[in-house]
Amino acid sequence: MKKHRRIILAHGSGGKLSHDLIKEVFLKHFANPTLNKLDDAAVVSLSSIAHRLLQGEEASDKVRFAFTTDSYVVSPLFFPGGDIGKLSVCGTVNDLSMMGAKPLFLSASFIIEEGFQISELERILSSMRKAAEEAKVTIIAGDTKVVDKGSADGMFISTTGVGFIPGGVEISGSNARPGDKVIVSGTIGDHGIAILSQREGLRFSIRLRSDCAPLNELVEDMLEASKEIHCLRDPTRGGIASALNEIATKSNVGIRIYEEAIPIHDAVRAACEMLGLDPFHLANEGKLVAIVGHSDAEKILEKMRGNRYGVDAAVIGEVVEEHKGRVVLKTIFGASRLLDMLVGDLLPRIC
Amino acid sequence: MKKHRRIILAHGSGGKLSHDLIKEVFLKHFANPTLNKLDDAAVVSLSSIAHRLLQGEEASDKVRFAFTTDSYVVSPLFFPGGDIGKLSVCGTVNDLSMMGAKPLFLSASFIIEEGFQISELERILSSMRKAAEEAKVTIIAGDTKVVDKGSADGMFISTTGVGFIPGGVEISGSNARPGDKVIVSGTIGDHGIAILSQREGLRFSIRLRSDCAPLNELVEDMLEASKEIHCLRDPTRGGIASALNEIATKSNVGIRIYEEAIPIHDAVRAACEMLGLDPFHLANEGKLVAIVGHSDAEKILEKMRGNRYGVDAAVIGEVVEEHKGRVVLKTIFGASRLLDMLVGDLLPRIC
Repeated sequence: MKKHRRIILAHGSGGKLSHDLIKEVFLKHFANPTLNKLDDAAVVSLSSIAHRLLQGEEASDKVRFAFTTDSYVVSPLFFPGGDIGKLSVCGTVNDLSMMGAKPLFLSASFIIEEGFQISELERILSSMRKAAEEAKVTIIAGDTKVVDKGSADGMFISTTGVGFIPGGVEISGSNARPGDKVIVSGTIGDHGIAILSQREGLRFSIRLRSDCAPLNELVEDMLEASKEIHCLRDPTRGGIASALNEIATKSNVGIRIYEEAIPIHDAVRAACEMLGLDPFHLANEGKLVAIVGHSDAEKILEKMRGNRYGVDAAVIGEVVEEHKGRVVLKTIFGASRLLDMLVGDLLPRIC
Repeated sequence: MKKHRRIILAHGSGGKLSHDLIKEVFLKHFANPTLNKLDDAAVVSLSSIAHRLLQGEEASDKVRFAFTTDSYVVSPLFFPGGDIGKLSVCGTVNDLSMMGAKPLFLSASFIIEEGFQISELERILSSMRKAAEEAKVTIIAGDTKVVDKGSADGMFISTTGVGFIPGGVEISGSNARPGDKVIVSGTIGDHGIAILSQREGLRFSIRLRSDCAPLNELVEDMLEASKEIHCLRDPTRGGIASALNEIATKSNVGIRIYEEAIPIHDAVRAACEMLGLDPFHLANEGKLVAIVGHSDAEKILEKMRGNRYGVDAAVIGEVVEEHKGRVVLKTIFGASRLLDMLVGDLLPRIC
């Protein structure tokens, strides 16, 4: 194709330039036999799924699929530790993982503002490819729309994922039981502060990076250690406070967590104090919160710490009979305070 | 929740207002047992799929799934014959149908501009629900992001669909063979002209409506008449010219079509003449182009005409050995002209 350096409206026309863009830019990064067909829908056979994942298990009534979608509107598009492309793959992989599913396929749909630099598009596609490779997931369907200058802010990406849930895995936000332990996989608030500092041009003595990462292998490791994993949540928008409140409500239990047990970078703590933010409401993109049977908690924790995305994992609290539907934080000073769901918006366009 | 009349940024925060919006607005329209769980991913068992669709067929190696995604950025959001909601369901249902798949599930992801009227959101959700009901497809996963005023134009929707392809169905853009007949399911260009007239405030003596419709039942009817359906395409962006060019290229055949055989509303023809547009490049959202075995063409056509979305169906041409990879139009005056893929952009944000 005539080499364009920027996206023009005709790249979204469905005609020749759309085809050129798909073949010469998108397929350069995402080529695979299923996507390359460029039919109206990608076709996958159950036997190809079985070949990849079931490993001898019969395709039976026990076979369940997980299905999830997210749009990504993060601003800025590039930030320390990632970009919108990496985020759009990791976020959807993580939503599948939070159901105990092994991610199989993704679709990716792009809304691009006229005038967008093709070199930046390629950077984003390249980091999507890397994240997909790490998560061992294939992008098999896609779409691109171009809108006129001023009708979108650079680029938005929507990804949808299909995953396979192995037999015996029963994870849901409503499965928490009194006595269960609450685990967080690492430091909280890194993504929120990384975006904020990039957006507002803040500088801290320690450079903060987003924790954006695919967590499917961490979840696989955990499930290998024990099937007593009752709930999993990735605390993105709304932070661990919102994730834990959701679980408390759905399971109709109380949750008690201990401030001193919660891993947090000094720089995030300092930024929160300076800016008056609550780290429990800050977004994370490479962390999970797990509610697990108390007798297996140590075994699960040990396994998590052996994974690169779980080295700072810690038990931070427990599920209790009292204050059903509520999350209570025991502060370092011994006081108790109610940890509410985020009300209002802390940081728009965090993911 | 406190009754909001407009979307505010906190509706996208992941916190309390997000939850209220989902429960009180989205679930009002889309409630179903799978979606209601509001977990990170929707879970469906193969047996529930079998129960719905396989009707006794074994879940075997022959089971194939179709997977497709699209973003919708149409402007204006409401137009004669539909709106962005109806379009986002029909478009994805149709992409699945074009592979011969029966649509099973959809996900829907919304990017909404701050300040958007909740009453308009509800109108859009309501028409999504109606379209989904007509297509017998369930929306089981979703996401909502809110961006600050000026960062998006009202609303964009991304839908992703999963469908089931019955055994014996082999439809692909590369299956056209010389001798095959080319069928179009009805009048061309209605959607393109309806959007254009709404956008530009043009008035014609006859009111033009978009043809936006779910075509899965039409395709089921066709497959009931014959399995000799080789290619199906919904000629959206880029029109029937781009759809036929894609098929000619993929199948490495020539395609010849006859102008006089192509159904077109007088008003669309008049608008095209007035505005210098080529109806073959105009978008359709409720039409399909089919390449079928010549001996079954009449049988398929008859069946199509019995469906409300196929009453004007017509054989418009044939697949030929000559001019491989190219589409030739025989004009009403007997001349031949090459029908090219759309170059440049005719109408941005047509879908």
